[in-house]
Amino acid sequence: MDIYFLLFEDFETLDVFGPVEILSRIEKVKLHYISLSGGMIKSKQGFYTQTESITGIAPNSIVVVPGGQGTRSLVSNELFIKTLRNLCDRAENVLSICTGSALLAKSGVLDKRNATSNKKAFDWVRSISQNVNWIKKARWVVDEKYYTSSGVSAGMDMSLGFISDLFGIEKAKQIAFDIEYFWNSNKECDVFE
Amino acid sequence: MDIYFLLFEDFETLDVFGPVEILSRIEKVKLHYISLSGGMIKSKQGFYTQTESITGIAPNSIVVVPGGQGTRSLVSNELFIKTLRNLCDRAENVLSICTGSALLAKSGVLDKRNATSNKKAFDWVRSISQNVNWIKKARWVVDEKYYTSSGVSAGMDMSLGFISDLFGIEKAKQIAFDIEYFWNSNKECDVFE
Repeated sequence: MDIYFLLFEDFETLDVFGPVEILSRIEKVKLHYISLSGGMIKSKQGFYTQTESITGIAPNSIVVVPGGQGTRSLVSNELFIKTLRNLCDRAENVLSICTGSALLAKSGVLDKRNATSNKKAFDWVRSISQNVNWIKKARWVVDEKYYTSSGVSAGMDMSLGFISDLFGIEKAKQIAFDIEYFWNSNKECDVFE
Repeated sequence: MDIYFLLFEDFETLDVFGPVEILSRIEKVKLHYISLSGGMIKSKQGFYTQTESITGIAPNSIVVVPGGQGTRSLVSNELFIKTLRNLCDRAENVLSICTGSALLAKSGVLDKRNATSNKKAFDWVRSISQNVNWIKKARWVVDEKYYTSSGVSAGMDMSLGFISDLFGIEKAKQIAFDIEYFWNSNKECDVFE
Protein backbone atom coordinates (compact mmCIF):
# COMPACT_ATOMS: atom_id res chain seq x y z
CA MET A 1 0.00 0.00 0.00
CA ASP A 2 1.28 3.46 -0.93
CA ILE A 3 0.33 6.48 1.18
CA TYR A 4 1.02 10.01 -0.08
CA PHE A 5 1.22 12.88 2.42
CA LEU A 6 0.60 16.14 0.58
CA LEU A 7 2.65 18.92 2.15
CA PHE A 8 2.54 22.67 1.52
CA GLU A 9 3.99 25.79 3.16
CA ASP A 10 2.57 26.40 6.65
CA PHE A 11 0.95 23.00 7.04
CA GLU A 12 0.08 22.14 10.64
CA THR A 13 2.66 19.73 12.10
CA LEU A 14 0.51 17.21 13.96
CA ASP A 15 -2.00 17.04 11.08
CA VAL A 16 0.72 15.25 9.13
CA PHE A 17 2.92 13.51 11.66
CA GLY A 18 0.21 12.10 13.91
CA PRO A 19 -1.22 10.12 10.97
CA VAL A 20 2.33 9.32 9.75
CA GLU A 21 3.12 7.66 13.09
CA ILE A 22 -0.05 5.56 12.94
CA LEU A 23 -0.35 4.76 9.23
CA SER A 24 3.33 3.78 9.05
CA ARG A 25 2.43 0.77 11.19
CA ILE A 26 0.29 -0.81 8.47
CA GLU A 27 2.13 -3.84 7.15
CA LYS A 28 3.94 -3.49 3.81
CA VAL A 29 3.08 0.20 3.60
CA LYS A 30 5.22 2.73 1.75
CA LEU A 31 5.01 6.37 2.78
CA HIS A 32 5.61 9.24 0.34
CA TYR A 33 6.03 12.90 1.20
CA ILE A 34 4.97 15.03 -1.75
CA SER A 35 4.31 18.65 -2.64
CA LEU A 36 3.27 20.56 -5.76
CA SER A 37 6.83 21.43 -6.81
CA GLY A 38 8.90 19.15 -4.59
CA GLY A 39 11.83 20.33 -2.46
CA MET A 40 11.90 21.56 1.10
CA ILE A 41 8.57 22.47 2.67
CA LYS A 42 8.36 24.56 5.86
CA SER A 43 5.71 23.72 8.44
CA LYS A 44 3.86 26.30 10.52
CA GLN A 45 6.15 25.18 13.34
CA GLY A 46 9.26 26.20 11.43
CA PHE A 47 11.03 23.01 10.37
CA TYR A 48 11.72 21.88 6.81
CA THR A 49 10.78 18.48 5.42
CA GLN A 50 12.05 17.12 2.10
CA THR A 51 9.34 16.30 -0.46
CA GLU A 52 9.12 14.83 -3.94
CA SER A 53 7.13 16.64 -6.62
CA ILE A 54 3.80 15.14 -7.61
CA THR A 55 4.29 12.97 -10.67
CA GLY A 56 1.32 10.68 -10.23
CA ILE A 57 0.45 8.03 -7.69
CA ALA A 58 0.57 4.26 -7.64
CA PRO A 59 -2.69 2.31 -8.12
CA ASN A 60 -4.83 1.77 -5.00
CA SER A 61 -3.09 4.58 -3.12
CA ILE A 62 -4.10 6.64 -0.12
CA VAL A 63 -3.77 10.44 -0.19
CA VAL A 64 -3.54 12.38 3.09
CA VAL A 65 -4.28 16.13 3.08
CA PRO A 66 -3.38 18.13 6.20
CA GLY A 67 -4.69 21.53 7.21
CA GLY A 68 -3.09 24.59 8.69
CA GLN A 69 -2.54 28.27 8.01
CA GLY A 70 -1.28 27.49 4.51
CA THR A 71 -4.73 26.40 3.35
CA ARG A 72 -5.98 30.01 3.51
CA SER A 73 -4.05 31.00 0.41
CA LEU A 74 -3.94 27.53 -1.21
CA VAL A 75 -7.70 27.48 -1.83
CA SER A 76 -7.04 30.22 -4.40
CA ASN A 77 -4.15 28.38 -6.10
CA GLU A 78 -5.80 26.94 -9.22
CA LEU A 79 -2.90 24.66 -10.14
CA PHE A 80 -2.78 23.19 -6.64
CA ILE A 81 -6.54 22.61 -6.51
CA LYS A 82 -6.58 21.04 -9.98
CA THR A 83 -3.66 18.77 -9.06
CA LEU A 84 -5.39 17.79 -5.82
CA ARG A 85 -8.54 16.95 -7.79
CA ASN A 86 -6.55 14.62 -10.03
CA LEU A 87 -4.92 12.91 -7.05
CA CYS A 88 -8.30 12.39 -5.39
CA ASP A 89 -9.88 10.97 -8.53
CA ARG A 90 -7.13 8.36 -8.75
CA ALA A 91 -6.83 7.52 -5.05
CA GLU A 92 -8.43 4.54 -3.39
CA ASN A 93 -8.99 6.63 -0.27
CA VAL A 94 -8.52 10.28 0.65
CA LEU A 95 -8.01 11.38 4.26
CA SER A 96 -8.06 15.03 5.33
CA ILE A 97 -7.23 16.53 8.71
CA CYS A 98 -8.42 19.86 10.07
CA THR A 99 -8.78 22.51 7.32
CA GLY A 100 -7.47 20.06 4.74
CA SER A 101 -11.16 19.50 4.00
CA ALA A 102 -11.39 23.09 2.75
CA LEU A 103 -8.91 22.17 0.01
CA LEU A 104 -10.91 19.06 -0.87
CA ALA A 105 -14.15 21.08 -0.88
CA LYS A 106 -12.65 23.67 -3.21
CA SER A 107 -11.66 20.92 -5.65
CA GLY A 108 -15.28 19.74 -5.79
CA VAL A 109 -14.66 16.18 -4.65
CA LEU A 110 -16.79 16.66 -1.54
CA ASP A 111 -19.85 17.93 -3.47
CA LYS A 112 -23.03 16.35 -2.04
CA ARG A 113 -20.92 14.50 0.53
CA ASN A 114 -20.80 14.58 4.32
CA ALA A 115 -17.62 16.06 5.75
CA THR A 116 -16.19 17.81 8.80
CA SER A 117 -13.32 20.14 9.64
CA ASN A 118 -11.57 22.10 12.37
CA LYS A 119 -13.97 23.75 14.81
CA LYS A 120 -12.19 27.08 15.11
CA ALA A 121 -12.11 27.56 11.33
CA PHE A 122 -15.50 26.03 10.61
CA ASP A 123 -17.20 29.18 9.31
CA TRP A 124 -14.34 29.82 6.92
CA VAL A 125 -14.32 26.20 5.71
CA ARG A 126 -18.08 26.30 5.18
CA SER A 127 -17.68 29.47 3.12
CA ILE A 128 -15.40 27.64 0.67
CA SER A 129 -18.22 25.44 -0.59
CA GLN A 130 -21.94 25.34 0.02
CA ASN A 131 -22.17 22.08 -1.93
CA VAL A 132 -20.84 20.03 0.99
CA ASN A 133 -23.00 18.73 3.84
CA TRP A 134 -20.77 20.05 6.62
CA ILE A 135 -21.16 18.22 9.93
CA LYS A 136 -19.78 20.27 12.80
CA LYS A 137 -20.17 17.79 15.65
CA ALA A 138 -17.99 14.84 14.63
CA ARG A 139 -14.53 13.54 15.52
CA TRP A 140 -14.34 12.35 11.93
CA VAL A 141 -16.74 11.64 9.05
CA VAL A 142 -16.64 8.85 6.47
CA ASP A 143 -18.36 9.20 3.10
CA GLU A 144 -17.39 6.36 0.79
CA LYS A 145 -13.70 6.80 0.05
CA TYR A 146 -13.43 10.20 1.77
CA TYR A 147 -12.42 10.47 5.42
CA THR A 148 -12.41 13.98 6.91
CA SER A 149 -11.43 14.75 10.51
CA SER A 150 -11.90 17.71 12.79
CA GLY A 151 -8.96 19.66 14.23
CA VAL A 152 -5.31 18.61 14.48
CA SER A 153 -5.21 15.68 16.94
CA ALA A 154 -8.44 14.22 15.54
CA GLY A 155 -6.37 13.04 12.59
CA MET A 156 -4.79 10.39 14.80
CA ASP A 157 -8.15 9.03 15.90
CA MET A 158 -9.36 9.02 12.29
CA SER A 159 -6.22 7.21 11.13
CA LEU A 160 -6.91 4.46 13.65
CA GLY A 161 -10.56 4.43 12.52
CA PHE A 162 -9.41 4.06 8.93
CA ILE A 163 -7.17 1.13 9.90
CA SER A 164 -10.07 -0.38 11.83
CA ASP A 165 -12.32 -0.15 8.76
CA LEU A 166 -9.68 -1.75 6.54
CA PHE A 167 -8.05 -4.31 8.78
CA GLY A 168 -10.35 -4.73 11.79
CA ILE A 169 -10.61 -3.04 15.15
CA GLU A 170 -8.06 -5.36 16.80
CA LYS A 171 -5.33 -4.10 14.50
CA ALA A 172 -6.23 -0.49 15.31
CA LYS A 173 -6.28 -1.22 19.03
CA GLN A 174 -2.89 -2.94 18.81
CA ILE A 175 -1.31 0.07 17.10
CA ALA A 176 -2.83 2.45 19.68
CA PHE A 177 -1.44 0.22 22.44
CA ASP A 178 2.00 0.06 20.84
CA ILE A 179 2.30 3.84 20.79
CA GLU A 180 0.67 4.11 24.25
CA TYR A 181 -2.17 6.18 22.79
CA PHE A 182 -5.66 6.54 24.23
CA TRP A 183 -7.71 6.10 21.05
CA ASN A 184 -11.01 7.96 20.90
CA SER A 185 -12.61 5.31 18.75
CA ASN A 186 -16.13 6.74 18.46
CA LYS A 187 -16.17 9.04 15.46
CA GLU A 188 -19.39 10.69 16.62
CA CYS A 189 -18.09 11.56 20.08
CA ASP A 190 -16.90 15.16 19.84
CA VAL A 191 -16.59 17.41 22.87
CA PHE A 192 -14.86 20.26 21.08
CA GLU A 193 -17.79 21.80 19.25
CA MET B 1 12.10 30.82 25.49
CA ASP B 2 14.26 28.63 23.24
CA ILE B 3 13.41 24.94 22.80
CA TYR B 4 15.88 22.58 21.13
CA PHE B 5 14.63 19.32 19.61
CA LEU B 6 17.55 16.90 19.35
CA LEU B 7 17.14 14.73 16.26
CA PHE B 8 19.10 11.66 15.17
CA GLU B 9 18.78 8.92 12.54
CA ASP B 10 15.75 6.69 13.14
CA PHE B 11 14.11 8.89 15.73
CA GLU B 12 10.41 8.10 16.29
CA THR B 13 8.21 10.63 14.53
CA LEU B 14 5.51 11.39 17.09
CA ASP B 15 8.09 11.58 19.91
CA VAL B 16 9.28 14.80 18.28
CA PHE B 17 6.32 16.25 16.45
CA GLY B 18 3.66 15.73 19.11
CA PRO B 19 5.65 17.89 21.55
CA VAL B 20 6.52 20.31 18.70
CA GLU B 21 2.81 20.90 18.04
CA ILE B 22 2.13 21.60 21.72
CA LEU B 23 5.28 23.44 22.83
CA SER B 24 5.13 25.71 19.76
CA ARG B 25 2.02 27.24 21.31
CA ILE B 26 3.93 28.75 24.24
CA GLU B 27 4.04 32.52 23.77
CA LYS B 28 7.30 34.00 22.45
CA VAL B 29 8.85 30.56 22.03
CA LYS B 30 11.54 29.81 19.46
CA LEU B 31 11.92 26.23 18.25
CA HIS B 32 15.25 24.81 17.06
CA TYR B 33 15.83 21.50 15.31
CA ILE B 34 19.35 20.27 16.00
CA SER B 35 21.52 17.19 15.53
CA LEU B 36 25.10 16.22 16.30
CA SER B 37 26.44 17.14 12.85
CA GLY B 38 23.54 19.14 11.37
CA GLY B 39 22.07 18.46 7.92
CA MET B 40 19.20 16.22 6.92
CA ILE B 41 18.05 13.66 9.48
CA LYS B 42 15.85 10.71 8.51
CA SER B 43 13.12 9.57 10.86
CA LYS B 44 12.12 5.96 11.39
CA GLN B 45 9.12 6.80 9.22
CA GLY B 46 11.31 7.72 6.27
CA PHE B 47 11.13 11.49 5.87
CA TYR B 48 14.02 13.94 6.13
CA THR B 49 14.05 16.99 8.38
CA GLN B 50 16.62 19.77 8.15
CA THR B 51 18.66 20.35 11.31
CA GLU B 52 21.36 22.71 12.54
CA SER B 53 24.49 21.35 14.18
CA ILE B 54 24.81 21.74 17.93
CA THR B 55 26.86 24.83 18.65
CA GLY B 56 25.57 25.57 22.13
CA ILE B 57 22.21 26.66 23.47
CA ALA B 58 20.76 29.96 24.61
CA PRO B 59 20.45 30.60 28.38
CA ASN B 60 17.32 29.22 30.08
CA SER B 61 16.64 26.78 27.24
CA ILE B 62 14.63 23.61 27.05
CA VAL B 63 16.09 20.47 25.45
CA VAL B 64 13.76 17.76 24.09
CA VAL B 65 15.16 14.24 23.52
CA PRO B 66 13.01 11.79 21.52
CA GLY B 67 13.33 8.03 21.45
CA GLY B 68 13.10 5.47 18.71
CA GLN B 69 15.11 2.73 17.07
CA GLY B 70 18.07 5.07 16.66
CA THR B 71 18.71 5.10 20.41
CA ARG B 72 19.89 1.47 20.31
CA SER B 73 23.17 2.41 18.66
CA LEU B 74 23.38 5.97 19.96
CA VAL B 75 23.91 4.85 23.56
CA SER B 76 27.32 3.61 22.39
CA ASN B 77 28.23 6.84 20.60
CA GLU B 78 30.56 8.54 23.07
CA LEU B 79 30.61 11.89 21.27
CA PHE B 80 26.82 12.02 21.15
CA ILE B 81 26.45 11.10 24.83
CA LYS B 82 29.09 13.62 25.90
CA THR B 83 27.41 16.33 23.84
CA LEU B 84 24.01 15.44 25.29
CA ARG B 85 25.49 15.67 28.80
CA ASN B 86 26.75 19.18 28.07
CA LEU B 87 23.36 20.24 26.68
CA CYS B 88 21.58 18.88 29.75
CA ASP B 89 23.96 20.58 32.19
CA ARG B 90 23.23 23.93 30.54
CA ALA B 91 19.49 23.51 29.99
CA GLU B 92 16.81 24.95 32.25
CA ASN B 93 14.69 21.85 31.60
CA VAL B 94 15.20 18.57 29.79
CA LEU B 95 12.26 16.57 28.42
CA SER B 96 12.62 13.03 27.06
CA ILE B 97 10.05 10.89 25.29
CA CYS B 98 10.02 7.10 25.07
CA THR B 99 13.54 5.61 24.90
CA GLY B 100 15.03 9.11 24.90
CA SER B 101 15.47 8.48 28.63
CA ALA B 102 17.97 5.72 27.80
CA LEU B 103 20.19 8.36 26.22
CA LEU B 104 19.83 10.60 29.27
CA ALA B 105 20.54 7.66 31.57
CA LYS B 106 23.70 6.78 29.66
CA SER B 107 24.96 10.34 30.02
CA GLY B 108 24.60 10.07 33.79
CA VAL B 109 22.24 12.99 34.28
CA LEU B 110 19.50 10.72 35.64
CA ASP B 111 21.71 9.15 38.33
CA LYS B 112 19.77 8.87 41.61
CA ARG B 113 16.72 10.37 39.90
CA ASN B 114 13.23 9.05 39.21
CA ALA B 115 12.50 8.47 35.51
CA THR B 116 10.33 6.44 33.15
CA SER B 117 10.45 5.21 29.57
CA ASN B 118 8.65 3.23 26.86
CA LYS B 119 6.95 0.07 28.19
CA LYS B 120 7.96 -2.24 25.35
CA ALA B 121 11.63 -1.34 25.68
CA PHE B 122 11.71 -1.03 29.45
CA ASP B 123 14.06 -3.93 30.15
CA TRP B 124 16.56 -2.60 27.63
CA VAL B 125 16.32 0.92 29.03
CA ARG B 126 16.81 -0.37 32.56
CA SER B 127 19.90 -2.26 31.42
CA ILE B 128 21.53 1.00 30.29
CA SER B 129 21.85 2.29 33.84
CA GLN B 130 21.21 0.80 37.23
CA ASN B 131 21.81 4.19 38.85
CA VAL B 132 18.34 5.45 37.87
CA ASN B 133 15.19 4.82 39.91
CA TRP B 134 13.13 3.55 36.97
CA ILE B 135 9.37 3.87 37.46
CA LYS B 136 7.47 1.63 35.07
CA LYS B 137 3.91 2.66 35.85
CA ALA B 138 3.80 6.36 34.98
CA ARG B 139 2.53 8.46 32.09
CA TRP B 140 5.41 10.78 32.83
CA VAL B 141 7.80 11.49 35.73
CA VAL B 142 9.16 14.81 36.97
CA ASP B 143 12.40 15.02 38.95
CA GLU B 144 13.50 18.62 39.35
CA LYS B 145 14.39 19.86 35.87
CA TYR B 146 14.07 16.44 34.22
CA TYR B 147 10.78 15.33 32.65
CA THR B 148 10.70 11.79 31.22
CA SER B 149 7.67 10.27 29.52
CA SER B 150 6.63 6.76 28.62
CA GLY B 151 6.04 5.67 25.01
CA VAL B 152 5.47 7.84 21.94
CA SER B 153 2.11 9.57 22.47
CA ALA B 154 2.83 10.11 26.19
CA GLY B 155 5.14 12.91 25.09
CA MET B 156 2.12 15.03 24.21
CA ASP B 157 0.58 14.59 27.64
CA MET B 158 3.91 15.37 29.30
CA SER B 159 4.35 18.50 27.15
CA LEU B 160 0.98 19.76 28.35
CA GLY B 161 1.97 18.82 31.93
CA PHE B 162 5.19 20.79 31.51
CA ILE B 163 3.22 23.81 30.29
CA SER B 164 0.83 23.39 33.21
CA ASP B 165 3.74 23.40 35.68
CA LEU B 166 5.27 26.51 34.11
CA PHE B 167 2.24 28.57 33.13
CA GLY B 168 -0.74 27.06 34.98
CA ILE B 169 -3.25 24.39 34.13
CA GLU B 170 -5.60 26.75 32.30
CA LYS B 171 -2.95 27.47 29.69
CA ALA B 172 -2.39 23.73 29.16
CA LYS B 173 -6.12 23.08 28.91
CA GLN B 174 -6.51 25.90 26.38
CA ILE B 175 -3.78 24.46 24.14
CA ALA B 176 -5.31 20.97 24.36
CA PHE B 177 -8.69 22.46 23.43
CA ASP B 178 -7.22 24.42 20.51
CA ILE B 179 -5.77 21.27 18.96
CA GLU B 180 -8.89 19.26 19.88
CA TYR B 181 -6.81 16.91 22.02
CA PHE B 182 -8.06 14.82 24.94
CA TRP B 183 -5.30 15.55 27.45
CA ASN B 184 -4.51 12.76 29.91
CA SER B 185 -3.52 15.20 32.62
CA ASN B 186 -2.75 12.74 35.44
CA LYS B 187 0.89 11.76 35.13
CA GLU B 188 0.39 8.77 37.39
CA CYS B 189 -2.49 7.31 35.37
CA ASP B 190 -0.92 4.72 33.08
CA VAL B 191 -2.90 1.85 31.58
CA PHE B 192 -0.15 0.64 29.27
CA GLU B 193 2.06 -1.16 31.78
